Amino acid sequence: MEAPTTEQVIADRRHMARALKLADYGRFTADPNPRVGCVIVRDGREVGAGLHWKAGEVHAEVNALQAAGEAVQGATAYVTLEPCSHQGRTPPCTDALIRAGVARVVIAMLDPNPQVCGGGIDALQAAGIRVDSGVLEAEARALNPGFVQRMEQGRPWVRVKLAASLDGRTAMASGESQWITGEAARRDVQLWRARAGAIVTGSGTVVGDDPRLNVRMKPFDLAAHAGFPDDPRYHDLPTRQPLRVILDARLRTPPGSQILRDGPVWILTSPDVVGSPAADALRGKGAEVRAVPLAEESAEGGLDLGAVLTELGRAEVNELHVESGPGLAGALARGGWVDEWLIYQAPLLMGSSARPLVEWPLARMAERAELEVIDTRWVGDTLRLLARPRS
Amino acid sequence: MEAPTTEQVIADRRHMARALKLADYGRFTADPNPRVGCVIVRDGREVGAGLHWKAGEVHAEVNALQAAGEAVQGATAYVTLEPCSHQGRTPPCTDALIRAGVARVVIAMLDPNPQVCGGGIDALQAAGIRVDSGVLEAEARALNPGFVQRMEQGRPWVRVKLAASLDGRTAMASGESQWITGEAARRDVQLWRARAGAIVTGSGTVVGDDPRLNVRMKPFDLAAHAGFPDDPRYHDLPTRQPLRVILDARLRTPPGSQILRDGPVWILTSPDVVGSPAADALRGKGAEVRAVPLAEESAEGGLDLGAVLTELGRAEVNELHVESGPGLAGALARGGWVDEWLIYQAPLLMGSSARPLVEWPLARMAERAELEVIDTRWVGDTLRLLARPRS
Repeated sequence: MEAPTTEQVIADRRHMARALKLADYGRFTADPNPRVGCVIVRDGREVGAGLHWKAGEVHAEVNALQAAGEAVQGATAYVTLEPCSHQGRTPPCTDALIRAGVARVVIAMLDPNPQVCGGGIDALQAAGIRVDSGVLEAEARALNPGFVQRMEQGRPWVRVKLAASLDGRTAMASGESQWITGEAARRDVQLWRARAGAIVTGSGTVVGDDPRLNVRMKPFDLAAHAGFPDDPRYHDLPTRQPLRVILDARLRTPPGSQILRDGPVWILTSPDVVGSPAADALRGKGAEVRAVPLAEESAEGGLDLGAVLTELGRAEVNELHVESGPGLAGALARGGWVDEWLIYQAPLLMGSSARPLVEWPLARMAERAELEVIDTRWVGDTLRLLARPRS
Repeated sequence: MEAPTTEQVIADRRHMARALKLADYGRFTADPNPRVGCVIVRDGREVGAGLHWKAGEVHAEVNALQAAGEAVQGATAYVTLEPCSHQGRTPPCTDALIRAGVARVVIAMLDPNPQVCGGGIDALQAAGIRVDSGVLEAEARALNPGFVQRMEQGRPWVRVKLAASLDGRTAMASGESQWITGEAARRDVQLWRARAGAIVTGSGTVVGDDPRLNVRMKPFDLAAHAGFPDDPRYHDLPTRQPLRVILDARLRTPPGSQILRDGPVWILTSPDVVGSPAADALRGKGAEVRAVPLAEESAEGGLDLGAVLTELGRAEVNELHVESGPGLAGALARGGWVDEWLIYQAPLLMGSSARPLVEWPLARMAERAELEVIDTRWVGDTLRLLARPRS
């Protein structure tokens, strides 16, 4: 196979960038499927485009092929994720591409599921279609951090949201914390909740703050705040409530808690209380109470966080949004489970007796956690930082 | 007097902006005088410009007039600060402007010294010169926050520099703190030290870290890092060491401390130990040991910070750069003495047992200190925030 020309490389990136943009429009709806976009190009011109809009509905490739119609003959299809070659909720996309008569398929990243990775490419090549892969691969992986991590490691991508003062405090010693950040930051948090497969908190937060931890913004508002183009489909969509998960080893969650009101809630607890009357009372309020082993080395008798994440991975949770006190955030940090810190820094000083950002006692500088700040943004008067552990 | 045309207003602002830029080139050298710039404009064209380069040398107006030469007849002089009408280390600038034959003087801000404020304008007007003032006044005040505050309130502008982790910690519990920020941030700190009239620290920092707290960057390096145009005069200048001040109520400073080595040091202590042998030992190392009253309400027996600032104001300190531990920073915050926070935030988590940003126990959210972040900037991988208390 001859090497592509520079012009071809540039054109491939341009079309793939467009497909990635389309894929992102499924940010709040595609879950638990990956966000996928597809663009059909013939003679350098886009003749069809589509995205995977919603789990259970058709895949991006099929949407794009339908939009292209007859023009697809001999065209190139740009897909942000390797097309599936297996029967899922919908027929395999490789079949659709082969039947439509595309001459070439360009793929950003291979299927991260080790069981099916490469199968789509094989099927296309067996049908005589030229396949190139790896175009804007890093960008494609960044679009679906949760799906990729769940497929590769069986656990969700863990994003810990914290609202703190400039001196790194999340609440007064009394627990008082309303409101550290302003309205604009609280609105921004809605977008992060809405893209998550599940929202996790600790029973301490439920007992202390009685939060709802739900998505209150309507889909078309989410889309507008995310800068997506207006799409009438957003107006008809009901608000999707991510699974809410309470880590509650001792079942301290009051059955009257607000979090139990709208939509699915799991309460993960220790095996010795999962069959207790307290558990049944919570089940009576609609919660699903499940047992998870206790952590072996935990002084506070907390749950085994690795087991919690495996359980959530099995439930097809891609992105896990953690909104908790410094205790759970600290336990996740100590266990090395945090993939991303989402920190809202309000222009305040809350003083030295206020609660820390994370409960994480370190003794020596050498133990410090080094982060890489990958994004900073003003949200109203609050500075939002997105940071990841340095590997 | 007729109202100026829109064109005149725009031209006035443009020329004053240029004069302010010139004034800023005296950032590291004019102290304890204010930074002042002057531009002479005739028929819309700049015919001369100058700045106040160094205390004891000629003022900005005289430099600009000399540069303009004959062209000054009937011209307009733009000056960032009301020209002096009194004999100081140099003759009054109003005389020079009058003698040179300028027709109009535009002033950004009046002299902040209540004793002489307006005197310059009166002298110019008495000589038949048209005077307009208040052009870019806020910018002119921002250029000399220390000089303005000292003239208006008799005390320096207090800028507290802190280096912290993202979770707001300045050192491990053991005191270990090297290095939180990287080389780029440490270089940036040099510019803030170099513009200050004095650098203040607490005896705890001297005992614990034995810092030098000096300016190690040469004047031409400072100018280059500040983005000033190259000027041969910077190459000949010796490094100016700001006064270093140690707040040390109990005279704990070891006579062998590094801070005592280069240049002037004051040790402010309580009246009952100012005559002790320990004080004499420090005097033997070149330090000036002075008495300041103890704070009446201080549990830790600290110095009266208001008295400290008055003392430094009397010593003509404009900008006071504080580099200390969280104790002194907290005491300044509690007293309401902090005018500006300069916070370097390194991409680290140091954990919940590490030392706080400021020792400042607050019990209720209502007591929190609200700040306004006026500047954020990346310095290497460190985020630099400049914030001021909201009034």
